[in-house]
Amino acid sequence: MTTRAPADIGMPLQAVDTPALIIELDAFECNLRRLPQSLVGKPVRLRPHAKTHKCPVIALKQIELGAVGQCVQKVGEAEALVMGGVKDVLVCNQIVGAPKLERLAALAKLAQIGVCVDDAGNVEDLNAAARRLGVKLDVLVEINVGANRCGVESAEAALDLAKKIAALSNLRFRGLQAYQGAAQHLRQYSERKAAIQAAAEQSRKTKALIEQHGIRCECITGAGTGTYLIEAASEVYTELQAGSYIFMDADYNRNLAPDGAPISDFEQSLFIWTTVMSYPTAERAVVDAGLKALSVDSGNPLVAGLKGVEYVRASDEHGNLKITNPEVSLKIGDKLKLVPGHCDPTVNLYDWYVGVRAGKVEALWPISARGALL
Amino acid sequence: MTTRAPADIGMPLQAVDTPALIIELDAFECNLRRLPQSLVGKPVRLRPHAKTHKCPVIALKQIELGAVGQCVQKVGEAEALVMGGVKDVLVCNQIVGAPKLERLAALAKLAQIGVCVDDAGNVEDLNAAARRLGVKLDVLVEINVGANRCGVESAEAALDLAKKIAALSNLRFRGLQAYQGAAQHLRQYSERKAAIQAAAEQSRKTKALIEQHGIRCECITGAGTGTYLIEAASEVYTELQAGSYIFMDADYNRNLAPDGAPISDFEQSLFIWTTVMSYPTAERAVVDAGLKALSVDSGNPLVAGLKGVEYVRASDEHGNLKITNPEVSLKIGDKLKLVPGHCDPTVNLYDWYVGVRAGKVEALWPISARGALL
Repeated sequence: MTTRAPADIGMPLQAVDTPALIIELDAFECNLRRLPQSLVGKPVRLRPHAKTHKCPVIALKQIELGAVGQCVQKVGEAEALVMGGVKDVLVCNQIVGAPKLERLAALAKLAQIGVCVDDAGNVEDLNAAARRLGVKLDVLVEINVGANRCGVESAEAALDLAKKIAALSNLRFRGLQAYQGAAQHLRQYSERKAAIQAAAEQSRKTKALIEQHGIRCECITGAGTGTYLIEAASEVYTELQAGSYIFMDADYNRNLAPDGAPISDFEQSLFIWTTVMSYPTAERAVVDAGLKALSVDSGNPLVAGLKGVEYVRASDEHGNLKITNPEVSLKIGDKLKLVPGHCDPTVNLYDWYVGVRAGKVEALWPISARGALL
Repeated sequence: MTTRAPADIGMPLQAVDTPALIIELDAFECNLRRLPQSLVGKPVRLRPHAKTHKCPVIALKQIELGAVGQCVQKVGEAEALVMGGVKDVLVCNQIVGAPKLERLAALAKLAQIGVCVDDAGNVEDLNAAARRLGVKLDVLVEINVGANRCGVESAEAALDLAKKIAALSNLRFRGLQAYQGAAQHLRQYSERKAAIQAAAEQSRKTKALIEQHGIRCECITGAGTGTYLIEAASEVYTELQAGSYIFMDADYNRNLAPDGAPISDFEQSLFIWTTVMSYPTAERAVVDAGLKALSVDSGNPLVAGLKGVEYVRASDEHGNLKITNPEVSLKIGDKLKLVPGHCDPTVNLYDWYVGVRAGKVEALWPISARGALL
């Protein structure tokens, strides 16, 4: 039932049923190329985050354009990517509990697998699982560089974990996970720059302490779409994890460039395709995309290309549009594009991407890791 | 990948992998019985809303306890229920566009199918689809009773649609959809009562106008878990659509009873089972359930059974807990129950319910209409 695709290849966009998750392929491909191009000559590798797209087809396109592999947050996402042909996956997250650790270790028989830690007991559990499966896992120590989520709080604590990892039979210490998530949506460039420079300095000092103890710390990984050029210029970070750049969303588009203008690094390529299903008054239309078709955690979606039409309220299966422009003339059955407020959790509500170019469906890609919670 | 169940039958709850959607079966069954019991002797039928549970197993349990059928919002939900054995489904929503209308009409070959309208063109489209498939569809006119979403604005407009429906070959006019969604979460009982009494009065007048024109208006349907006893006492409503009562959520639990105390009509039976995956400081623990495991549109989830532990921030795959009670002692790997802020969109993130009784897994039910957007 739920895997029914909303479109067929070759169909005009206007015939695509709604709600559907649309990728405008020209904009998407432009974004896909633009980020690696912006890194040419910089001493950093790109490892895009697949928690955004959850789709092996897109992962392989990123790798074709030079990415060294993919980041994920969940073992289930790593499984979807590896089964889809990705050979190098870093789980930028702590993996806890025997069932997940066994699955992670089993994956290392098929691909290069890395994982992050911030706890000594978890390091032991990881090593035990890797030993049982006869594999080696790459391990990075996560340090808290200001996101105040996971990660150890001090360089000394990172050193202790690095020593522990280095001493264990089935783990390889690779470096530091230093993602400053709280910086991604600071609106002013100067704020983002200050936050990332502080994170880079903390990472540099932590690395220095670890290397003083004879343990090589080759990888410092982090960065997101809001800040990746700052990490790239830091001379500290070696890998970048940006993910949202391929799609963008209303929240990222509120960031400002160094000159104070709206950022224009990437184009909006991801949309929710929705139908006007009710039009009870001149000021109110209702579309068929609500909380189950888009995530409102970072604000409501925007109505693309229509001035004076605002998506003002999401209920479970409805979106209320407020129409303040008397020149807008909608009718029931009209289809509109919405810009998602936040791309990642919106993607997770769909089973398919509908890839569109010049108004025609060109691609249907399964969102293989949709719902990969475990 | 994503259909992997997080548990096996007979497994202790403690062994269930996370995040998982848990139903405490004792509380759930109590809720399941309590609502129909509270309606005994009242002139109303119960047609619970399946947009909450999206699961034919639960639908059939409700019907076994006296419900006349199910409500849904989407054709895909109706398909999942009918294929799962439900014989009477009302789509409490406008269905727009040829593909969905054809599917709706096709379902009427297998079950009694009703649908709502608020537009004359849509009525014609419905009739055409029903005629092509050789079926009859039950049709209700939606009236706006204060939710300010779909629905016609006046009794005269409802009459016009009723006349049109009654005159068409493959539609049967059944009555009015009069759901006052905006009343469900008004905290004070007196506010909820006033809103529903106004909705009932508007429905009564609309029905009277339609019946004055010789068209029988046998069904007035609406109500939710926040107000259903008010509709039941109205002598106007004939069917009740409450859905969330089987599970409850943090938002519904903030409603107050007539005496000003917290409501206690139903027990919390739905939980997100989550693991402490990181514990970087004494005041901060991180669990593995974030925006992709729970919906925050009605506020953050609550931590069940632990005083002084608050879920303060959801990111995509993480939940930050703030620990203010020094007596709470958590460790990495500990599993906690969260009360979802809003049950419906949270359920839509999972493929399975894990039914638990006395700490053991007793049931695994597929959430067949998860993601049924079309």
